[in-house]
Amino acid sequence: MRGAVLHAPGDIRVEEREVPRIVAPTDAVIRLSAACVCGSDLWPYRGVEAVDGPVAMGHEYVGIVEEVGDEVKTIKPGQFVIGSFFASDNTCGICGAGYQSLCVHRELVGGAQAELLRVPLADGTLVATPGVPADDLIPSFLAASDVLGTGWFGAVAAQAGPGRTVAVVGDGAVGLLAVLAARQLGAEQIIAMSRHAPRQKLAREFGATDIVTERGDAGIARVKELTGGLGAHSVIEAVGTQESMLQAIGSTRPGGHVGYVGVAHDVTLDGQELFFSHVHLHGGPAPVRQYLPQLIDLIWNRRINPGKVFDLDLPLDKAAEAYRAMDERRAIKALLRP
Amino acid sequence: MRGAVLHAPGDIRVEEREVPRIVAPTDAVIRLSAACVCGSDLWPYRGVEAVDGPVAMGHEYVGIVEEVGDEVKTIKPGQFVIGSFFASDNTCGICGAGYQSLCVHRELVGGAQAELLRVPLADGTLVATPGVPADDLIPSFLAASDVLGTGWFGAVAAQAGPGRTVAVVGDGAVGLLAVLAARQLGAEQIIAMSRHAPRQKLAREFGATDIVTERGDAGIARVKELTGGLGAHSVIEAVGTQESMLQAIGSTRPGGHVGYVGVAHDVTLDGQELFFSHVHLHGGPAPVRQYLPQLIDLIWNRRINPGKVFDLDLPLDKAAEAYRAMDERRAIKALLRP
Repeated sequence: MRGAVLHAPGDIRVEEREVPRIVAPTDAVIRLSAACVCGSDLWPYRGVEAVDGPVAMGHEYVGIVEEVGDEVKTIKPGQFVIGSFFASDNTCGICGAGYQSLCVHRELVGGAQAELLRVPLADGTLVATPGVPADDLIPSFLAASDVLGTGWFGAVAAQAGPGRTVAVVGDGAVGLLAVLAARQLGAEQIIAMSRHAPRQKLAREFGATDIVTERGDAGIARVKELTGGLGAHSVIEAVGTQESMLQAIGSTRPGGHVGYVGVAHDVTLDGQELFFSHVHLHGGPAPVRQYLPQLIDLIWNRRINPGKVFDLDLPLDKAAEAYRAMDERRAIKALLRP
Repeated sequence: MRGAVLHAPGDIRVEEREVPRIVAPTDAVIRLSAACVCGSDLWPYRGVEAVDGPVAMGHEYVGIVEEVGDEVKTIKPGQFVIGSFFASDNTCGICGAGYQSLCVHRELVGGAQAELLRVPLADGTLVATPGVPADDLIPSFLAASDVLGTGWFGAVAAQAGPGRTVAVVGDGAVGLLAVLAARQLGAEQIIAMSRHAPRQKLAREFGATDIVTERGDAGIARVKELTGGLGAHSVIEAVGTQESMLQAIGSTRPGGHVGYVGVAHDVTLDGQELFFSHVHLHGGPAPVRQYLPQLIDLIWNRRINPGKVFDLDLPLDKAAEAYRAMDERRAIKALLRP
């Protein structure tokens, strides 16, 4: 079986890997319909996260179930399914509260940039679509596996909704889909912070009403100008750097909500500044599983088209080019065809 | 007029101060019925916060209105009133959302350990009781001015309520009253973290069901043991140190809520640890004004007795002894009689 492996920073190779098989009786093996490269894959690709020997890459996946373990009850071979980067039992107390990404039995899913993938805890992790979808829907379902679910969680964590002004820091796929999520959740004014024309355009298609090109303090000042001098009610942070986090907190009005979903790298928050900012802060790895039924329904009925974030479509064997294009910001998000 | 002034760390003197007068037409001047020393007064007293010349101390106050400015409409001379440490207009967009402590026109109120006090924005800041209260209720109303309102905000920020387990880090007056607030808000299991027998006793009187004497990682482990291995749903942080903040975050289950009301001193939070803790974080200077009508009602009708936190009752002239007793943890909270 072919799969993408990171050997060292910048060194992605598609090579023969061992065929995934059922290991635990709660596993499923799926044949991937499509895979893709995540913004967070760029952290080890760029050497910001240490790479310790070859790593099978990819954690976003949709596909057809090939085989299930003896204890799998609801997921069946032949179904088209979507899961997310953390496998979860979906029955523990943490899952019950909607935080499947910190399920007490969670397992990280990896190696999805490949032909086949083993998914642990299949019943708790995978959600089947009503039928095998039309080909043109596959990018949108693939987006639901992570970037849409993550942007959605960011918008929920920021309490985006009717009557609340929203700002989004970050114009990667997650930030753009946070715009879409905020719109779906009923927000009317949505400010996208972006300096890149193609991303601004997509932000507007997804529901942004204002674009702010400034960053840092100037960006904060511009958001305040657009929100009656007070800052936005809801700000979604979708980058994960010190600068973006402070920009998000600074753009939020006192008592407002920051939803942060960019995986934090070298971020430290000063307790006293946070105290006097008076914001609500919530984030972390998105519990995508919680939103999958709702997202599948919206996509299946063609009410949203999150697949538009894929602006590069390559065969799996060209994974190295997909990484390069995203690293150089030539592509928002690259889809890989196994 | 006599008032307490901090001249340098450890140096509190009660001396003649200028008589407060109406400055702005929205001011009121009140004659204090009682004053007190706050845990946060100990930061400059201990030299942790810089003292830059003599400072008139005190920001908790109840008393009888002596005089009001020409534009004050609802507050009248002769009323018994309570306000809090930030004066607020109670009409701006931030006040409207319940965050009067970051009112766009807020002013810090200071110098309340005295006979008389000027309160800016009187209509937006002060709340009158239904009548002049019995003497034995005065400590409870004074508690409402800050420590009860702050503990209450901590409990609300932590979303304490029915069906949710609560832990409180800090056994000062705010922590103890956060226990009382959590009980009033409907929480059934309330874990107080305290190593001091008299404070443990008061915590139990206020509604604590469990006492944890361990701190740091051992304290976190004990809270998890008491909450099915997961951590508490709601944790209130009422100290403001690095250790207490990490203890609060670590004691919270993924997806749970930390309400932090201890004024943060030398606290830094690691972004990645916060990200993967998956908690909600909310806090800051408590918008006490929001809760005053409700708290006054509970106290007036003798449904709560927060005044029990005052375990030392001294004439104003003994303010230096009051500070010493609190600094040495011989007293939970000292009341001063002008």
